[in-house]
Amino acid sequence: MTSLVAPPITPKAFAPFGEVIETAGQDTHILINEGLCKRFTDLASFDVVGGAVGLSLFQAQLRPVPHICDLVERHPLGSQCFIPMGNSSYLVIVAPDAGGTPGALQAFTAGPDQIVNIGRNIWHGVLAPISGSGLFAVMDRVGGGVNLEEHSLEEGVSVVPEG
Amino acid sequence: MTSLVAPPITPKAFAPFGEVIETAGQDTHILINEGLCKRFTDLASFDVVGGAVGLSLFQAQLRPVPHICDLVERHPLGSQCFIPMGNSSYLVIVAPDAGGTPGALQAFTAGPDQIVNIGRNIWHGVLAPISGSGLFAVMDRVGGGVNLEEHSLEEGVSVVPEG
Repeated sequence: MTSLVAPPITPKAFAPFGEVIETAGQDTHILINEGLCKRFTDLASFDVVGGAVGLSLFQAQLRPVPHICDLVERHPLGSQCFIPMGNSSYLVIVAPDAGGTPGALQAFTAGPDQIVNIGRNIWHGVLAPISGSGLFAVMDRVGGGVNLEEHSLEEGVSVVPEG
Repeated sequence: MTSLVAPPITPKAFAPFGEVIETAGQDTHILINEGLCKRFTDLASFDVVGGAVGLSLFQAQLRPVPHICDLVERHPLGSQCFIPMGNSSYLVIVAPDAGGTPGALQAFTAGPDQIVNIGRNIWHGVLAPISGSGLFAVMDRVGGGVNLEEHSLEEGVSVVPEG
């Protein structure tokens, strides 16, 4: 079985697949609430076709490590933005498209302070928290239509966080 | 100085002021990711006039308890939805409108698994985390226009969480 080591996710490394949203590295904020709160404004690019962007809650079971990824999916009608609640770290597994099926997988580890917004129609593994409560707020498309395409991998890939 | 005890927030008690979004008490969800994740869909009512709903990050300093609330504000152009990251509990202080100024304050304590969506034009205190990291994802209106009205209280109110 192929093994992948998942380094910490960064906006630059993840750029081909979507956005990493965090306070680190932000060059602008405003001070609100009498100076006691930093506001970093309008950080996500939601991309939905039809429907609307809505807030949902995902309560995911923690996954054992190594995590075996044997299924990827994509959402042709919208981006999907994961906001960790409850100190969850999570594996983010993505792949470029290769003629309608996923190409070689890449894996990253996101921390509890990192929001990950996976681009519309980007192949990705399922939500895989490895610590914390497994509770996420998710901003994605709500509305009718077929917004899920799944692809089972012939051989699973074993993913471990770096370090 | 007036003192307020802030009981745990509930959707019912908070209904006049906005929404409490949590998995507890939800009567419907679907299972996704091969049964390993519960999805509770489209739980928030975003209410913005002009502009758009965007995702921002707020990094707030923790507030000592008792928390002295001496300033409330409201946003005439949009609701404001607070998603706690990093295990933050927070005080939610609100007031009904009384002829253009805030009426008697009410206080609640929200836990790290509870998202609070304060209604458009509802008087509320500033973001006041009392534990955790103080990091919040916020879904509120982004765009031009004057979307802030502040009101200083003649006498501060002392707020402590219940229990």
